[in-house]
Amino acid sequence: HALTRLGVEKGDRVATLAWNGYRHFELYFAISGIGAVCHTINPRLFHDQLTYIVNHAEDKYIFVDLTFVPLLEGLAADLPKVKGYVVMTDAVHMPTSSLPNLLCYEDLLAPEAEVYDWPLFDELTASSLCYTSGTTGEPKGSLYSHRSTVLHSFSVSTGEALACSSSDTLLPVVPMFHVNAWGMPYACAMNGVKLVLPGADYSGAALYELIEGEGVTKAAGVPTIWFMLLEYLRNEGKTFSRLNTVVAGGAAVPRSMIEAFQNEHGVDVYHAWGMTETSPVGTTGRLSAADKRLSKEEQVSIKCKQGRAVYGLDMKIVDDDGQELPRDGKAFGELMVRGPWVIGAYFENQAATAAAIEDGWFRTGDVARLDSAGHMQIVDRSKDLIKSGGEWISSIDLENLAVGHPEVAEAAAVGMPHPHWGERPLLVVVAAEGASPTREGMLAYLADKVAKIWMPDDVIFMDELPHTATGKISKLQLREKLADYRLPTA
Amino acid sequence: HALTRLGVEKGDRVATLAWNGYRHFELYFAISGIGAVCHTINPRLFHDQLTYIVNHAEDKYIFVDLTFVPLLEGLAADLPKVKGYVVMTDAVHMPTSSLPNLLCYEDLLAPEAEVYDWPLFDELTASSLCYTSGTTGEPKGSLYSHRSTVLHSFSVSTGEALACSSSDTLLPVVPMFHVNAWGMPYACAMNGVKLVLPGADYSGAALYELIEGEGVTKAAGVPTIWFMLLEYLRNEGKTFSRLNTVVAGGAAVPRSMIEAFQNEHGVDVYHAWGMTETSPVGTTGRLSAADKRLSKEEQVSIKCKQGRAVYGLDMKIVDDDGQELPRDGKAFGELMVRGPWVIGAYFENQAATAAAIEDGWFRTGDVARLDSAGHMQIVDRSKDLIKSGGEWISSIDLENLAVGHPEVAEAAAVGMPHPHWGERPLLVVVAAEGASPTREGMLAYLADKVAKIWMPDDVIFMDELPHTATGKISKLQLREKLADYRLPTA
Repeated sequence: HALTRLGVEKGDRVATLAWNGYRHFELYFAISGIGAVCHTINPRLFHDQLTYIVNHAEDKYIFVDLTFVPLLEGLAADLPKVKGYVVMTDAVHMPTSSLPNLLCYEDLLAPEAEVYDWPLFDELTASSLCYTSGTTGEPKGSLYSHRSTVLHSFSVSTGEALACSSSDTLLPVVPMFHVNAWGMPYACAMNGVKLVLPGADYSGAALYELIEGEGVTKAAGVPTIWFMLLEYLRNEGKTFSRLNTVVAGGAAVPRSMIEAFQNEHGVDVYHAWGMTETSPVGTTGRLSAADKRLSKEEQVSIKCKQGRAVYGLDMKIVDDDGQELPRDGKAFGELMVRGPWVIGAYFENQAATAAAIEDGWFRTGDVARLDSAGHMQIVDRSKDLIKSGGEWISSIDLENLAVGHPEVAEAAAVGMPHPHWGERPLLVVVAAEGASPTREGMLAYLADKVAKIWMPDDVIFMDELPHTATGKISKLQLREKLADYRLPTA
Repeated sequence: HALTRLGVEKGDRVATLAWNGYRHFELYFAISGIGAVCHTINPRLFHDQLTYIVNHAEDKYIFVDLTFVPLLEGLAADLPKVKGYVVMTDAVHMPTSSLPNLLCYEDLLAPEAEVYDWPLFDELTASSLCYTSGTTGEPKGSLYSHRSTVLHSFSVSTGEALACSSSDTLLPVVPMFHVNAWGMPYACAMNGVKLVLPGADYSGAALYELIEGEGVTKAAGVPTIWFMLLEYLRNEGKTFSRLNTVVAGGAAVPRSMIEAFQNEHGVDVYHAWGMTETSPVGTTGRLSAADKRLSKEEQVSIKCKQGRAVYGLDMKIVDDDGQELPRDGKAFGELMVRGPWVIGAYFENQAATAAAIEDGWFRTGDVARLDSAGHMQIVDRSKDLIKSGGEWISSIDLENLAVGHPEVAEAAAVGMPHPHWGERPLLVVVAAEGASPTREGMLAYLADKVAKIWMPDDVIFMDELPHTATGKISKLQLREKLADYRLPTA
């Protein structure tokens, strides 16, 4: 009712700039439910990216959490098409702000009827929109339809994915401003699952309190979050009473984390892989009956892979000429995907679409292996692979091994120029709190774990690594920081 | 390949007359996969119904299990359009038969390539067909599409329904010749679930051996099957090692059965409700977190209801004028449903369609209650409700109470003519093996369990009750048997 009164019409884009909270949840269903497009904006993007996105999407209104009002104040002058800003709070908490046409969320809703006669419309109607920051070029928009969202939600709800039922409680720690929090708000509504929204505080202490206080049975998020939570549990000597499953995605989960959750807390951790362009869920790493007949060690090895494609998603790997490679667990090449919740085009962006879509298949930019049982293993981002002579070295493999070292908090491997080999690996390490790992110690730790040719030519230490807006290590910014670095072997 | 060589084309109907076996499973995917329609025939139907169905569907070929070859021999003269009969066996086991154009399944497949390039076609293409016997008139065909089948399979795969994963083993005891075995063959393929097919032997001993031998974790079927299995376990003093869930549908599950599985064997039993016209799954009876906070007693009471609608299916109850009734757990009326896997029309049958579909809603013929939490409770089949004065009495409620009596194997309640009340209930009882329940004992047993007006006016005993082709008590035939019966009160 309130949106209609604001003049929002079918097909209009309405943006949100908000944490995971109940008002954001209401907007997911309200905006899409009237036939408009819920455009979730990632507040971690840069100023130029944010203005580009809002103007490219032609957002009519922006709904904004209190914390992001200052951010928007700095952008508003560059957003001429936005008709108004709705602060997601009540009258008492309304800020004074330089934003034009400022509205209060609860005041907007208060006079409206509580019953709404939801319209029926074509299933191909657009429902939501999310831009990826990318590492080069302008952000690109992935537009989802009601059809793709319902099918994706079904997929997320199957026994092979979240398997959530109305007796579960789910905590999505992934932000609702990024690929619809992996579709969990929809999947929870679909199955009557209790949904716990963490707001802005992702610290170990806050998450633990939420998990215990709300009886969370399943949680999902990026590995960084689970590192912090595990560390909190270790420091406090605590464990979970009801949590049974952690789904991790967005980056590879190191073996040590899977084992720590399993052995110290009885929590099953498995991978989910996907991208903004795939809604995002493409694979899930639940063990099959055959997997469970293997040794514990082998089971964890399978869990270190990204899982098998969910029903509806087709995957293949191709070489540089686009020829399909065998599914033998050895060959690796660019991962291509297609399916009902994979975008067919970027929103209003023909150039990006032409570069990404080929014969109905989407180029993921990930390099992966597939085996005969369907397990997919990400080798690297295509552009992060280290090309040493004829050999390709996975930066992700090196990083996962390095963070297994007890004195390492985070690690990044990058290919640095080398006159003979083209590139050779450099390992950049952030020490764990209070620890002082050494170059020699790191090299000795890796020596029996990787082939000699994969061994980093050098190890250096930094206080912190640069991250992208979605929390991944930004190799682009790291390379900029390393502009003056030369390998000792070069 | 083999079907194409036989001349089967897109849209052609190809029939199966078979038990749950792997060749039947192959046919599900082969026939539908090439764009033809897999028409499963219920061999329990009468001669006239079978010939009507095959001729109405214009089946091009019939694939038949060895056991049903004699049945078909008796029909073949009346099936002029059938081009051939394929016996689902190998050369060694081929029968001598009077059937014209007799082919051997394995001989048909042997020369063909094992790789097939599955065609892509419109999702609205018909995939399978199933006729309901009905109690009046000719059988009516429900035609399913690839779209409805995929969506239904997704629904069956969610956490609120079967929640099957690749570490599960599923035993559908419902026949594949009836509503695609509740969609389980598809749902298993969708999620990589091990599927165990019971063949023709549904006895307690055979099912127990399968469940234990194959490590079945979940099983689904009609209550009659589970009665036999429970009786077998009691007699043999056995229990299950891995079975954790039994889904029951097709008829109401009595309280005593839910409790026996739960308390004696640690197996969770819940209802699923549906019809041929709904693909069939419409509701599932999994307990929500709120339900689980109730007492054990109350939880079982909720499980005695038919469950809540799965996502995608809309339900309402209406009075005789088609006006929607409140969802208060008290009012009851005809249940109407709609959704992506509810038929919009009967196959080539305008009269039956006009009688069943109203404004996009399908009349189920079931009378039900809905409560505010969404639980649906079947009161009766519309035509089986006993109308006593102004009061409606549920024959199902009386039957469920009666079978709770330890000396009762099966029971049916029917309304018999009464000069004053219009109808009054008669209870027909089949005694449990070796037991001798009495009229007075039954009435005393019911006295404190139902309102006085619901008490049967008489109890009579039969050696067995007549059943329909899908295993339900045939009230129609029972009434014919009772044609000369008069109530002592009448």
